[in-house]
Amino acid sequence: MTHAGPAGPGAYVLGVDSGGSGLRVALGRVEEPGPLATTVCAEPVRTGPGGIDAGHLLDQLLPAARELLDRASDAASAEGRSDAPRAHGAPAGEVAAVAIGAAGMATLGERLRAELPGALAEALGVRRVALAADAVTAYAGAVGQRPGAVVAGGTGMIALGTDLKEWHRADGWGHLLGDSGGGAWIGRAGLDAAMRAHDGRRGGSAALLDRLRAVFGPAEELPGLLYPRSDRPAVLASFAPEVAACAGADPIAAGILRQAAGHVAEAAAAVCPAPAGSDGEPGEGGGTGEVALTGGLFRMGEPLVAPLREELARLLPGARVTVATGDPLTGALRIARALAAGDLRLPRHPTMLFVPLEQETGQHADPVVRASPRSG
Amino acid sequence: MTHAGPAGPGAYVLGVDSGGSGLRVALGRVEEPGPLATTVCAEPVRTGPGGIDAGHLLDQLLPAARELLDRASDAASAEGRSDAPRAHGAPAGEVAAVAIGAAGMATLGERLRAELPGALAEALGVRRVALAADAVTAYAGAVGQRPGAVVAGGTGMIALGTDLKEWHRADGWGHLLGDSGGGAWIGRAGLDAAMRAHDGRRGGSAALLDRLRAVFGPAEELPGLLYPRSDRPAVLASFAPEVAACAGADPIAAGILRQAAGHVAEAAAAVCPAPAGSDGEPGEGGGTGEVALTGGLFRMGEPLVAPLREELARLLPGARVTVATGDPLTGALRIARALAAGDLRLPRHPTMLFVPLEQETGQHADPVVRASPRSG
Repeated sequence: MTHAGPAGPGAYVLGVDSGGSGLRVALGRVEEPGPLATTVCAEPVRTGPGGIDAGHLLDQLLPAARELLDRASDAASAEGRSDAPRAHGAPAGEVAAVAIGAAGMATLGERLRAELPGALAEALGVRRVALAADAVTAYAGAVGQRPGAVVAGGTGMIALGTDLKEWHRADGWGHLLGDSGGGAWIGRAGLDAAMRAHDGRRGGSAALLDRLRAVFGPAEELPGLLYPRSDRPAVLASFAPEVAACAGADPIAAGILRQAAGHVAEAAAAVCPAPAGSDGEPGEGGGTGEVALTGGLFRMGEPLVAPLREELARLLPGARVTVATGDPLTGALRIARALAAGDLRLPRHPTMLFVPLEQETGQHADPVVRASPRSG
Repeated sequence: MTHAGPAGPGAYVLGVDSGGSGLRVALGRVEEPGPLATTVCAEPVRTGPGGIDAGHLLDQLLPAARELLDRASDAASAEGRSDAPRAHGAPAGEVAAVAIGAAGMATLGERLRAELPGALAEALGVRRVALAADAVTAYAGAVGQRPGAVVAGGTGMIALGTDLKEWHRADGWGHLLGDSGGGAWIGRAGLDAAMRAHDGRRGGSAALLDRLRAVFGPAEELPGLLYPRSDRPAVLASFAPEVAACAGADPIAAGILRQAAGHVAEAAAAVCPAPAGSDGEPGEGGGTGEVALTGGLFRMGEPLVAPLREELARLLPGARVTVATGDPLTGALRIARALAAGDLRLPRHPTMLFVPLEQETGQHADPVVRASPRSG
């Protein structure tokens, strides 16, 4: 933290991760690593024709943030620290920056971008707000602020890379247009092979048909179970671990995972910045890219990760491959902390990583005036 | 027609095809080939939790049938034929048999099987009713009553074969579990290749990306167009002709169609009866199977059909491959005609081709008594 930031060193930062399973909030301090506390709101933020519902997000975020701030303030008092922030000019409980990562930000984030910065300034006195696509918070959680690439795999699959000048994205197009190699893709390929065995078609796997029957019941009844559901990608992805479990003994299942590994590696190769001498962290890995794997997909372990390492070694020789420990919530907190410290090096982008211009240029004296009215 | 049937030779038969685009009805005579007249009810028959709505089907079928019978009766009077049926003991306007082919019959036809035979006996005096899966009427329309196989391709893809002892089915499991090589499959593969080109991933086709943009607009907005729709398979299939149009000059598009052809051939090979000496029509093709291609998929023409003939020649050497002229409505009329003449040789099956037992054993004196009450 060599850059001078406007936030007091004892001030707080908030990281937020809004996804299909709800809203997670982490509170930290500008100059301390890691979160002080985190909380979860189980209700996913609503989306409507106007995009992600900014009012619904705030209705959950603000009470959660106030509760986290109260807990932190109590803890600081107990440690006799409550005057420390004041000594540096920041009032106790000041939130210097908030970073919110949301699924669907790229296509659905218009209302968030219009309404949230002003509303947060009004409600919490926050001076700096960043709105990020969930792939960007995944990147920040997995890679930090270095150049590199992240592959975020779960039900879907997206790869995101940056040379710190611009973002490169590959796939993440959903289960009908891509997400190649992700959980739904693997599960679907496994069920396809099972149905082939059921029919006596070439490419069938008796082992996967056994697993299909164990999980879903009679094969011919699976269409009637699957198609009426609104969470079809999740149902498909639920079969992916069965494919992994069969891969040791079943060549069809192993072939599916090798193909998935190929698709994931292709996406990573498309976005990983070229080895460019002084790019990246000098002295680490000879300046070649870092590829971080993150998300539930890679909890499948070696049946997928072993062929993936091979495919990545082929397509990106010399790249360092890591299985990330930091999740998107960690990434959101990192972005908030960098923003508070005036040290955010990840590229700005209207939908990938949005920071209102007045914050960047220091014209944040009275952000409330510039805010759109909150609807809601 | 060497079998003696109970129907007067001048009696009528009805064929019905119930699908996603509505209900089609054809009227014919037992001993004359072809339909006398056909009509279309544009409203698709409703399905609910109880299956295909038998009442809704009858509400459309009965007026359509009566209108067709009136038209035929008027035409026969004008030709001075109106006494001909009576001379053979069948009253004018007698409907000897009805065959109804319906999409979803296998999984959703319970109410049809329970309610329709009795209701048709009551309303039209019909003595023989057959209820068939749409794949069976497609078979009857394309192959007739000979052993062989049909591939019915449209948005989906299903193969059905018989040795006249039992039915063999392959695929037709819908766009997430199979339908491999069908219209939605081809369109999806084409869009996947287009998105790969957009991302700079391996396997991309710039030609298909151009077509995607021409048809749907900016590539990154396609997910937002596709996923909210309820007719996603049809949207995917709408891109299949674009893949065919690119196949002449674009190796990726050509590869997709060759892969589709392979999947279709695999399904046909799984169901085509083995060459078995005296099976089939003696003297035709040396006793090997007949594979008929039917449905809108094959209107794509040579870009798909040429590689398909090659794949079929490899997997089913000696099989006769035909592009069928008879559609499922023709097939339904053929089944009704054979049923009326006591000459239905296609295998019975509870969900594939259902003929109530009392009709088979001649105990149809009072079918009304055995009918379930018709519910609205």
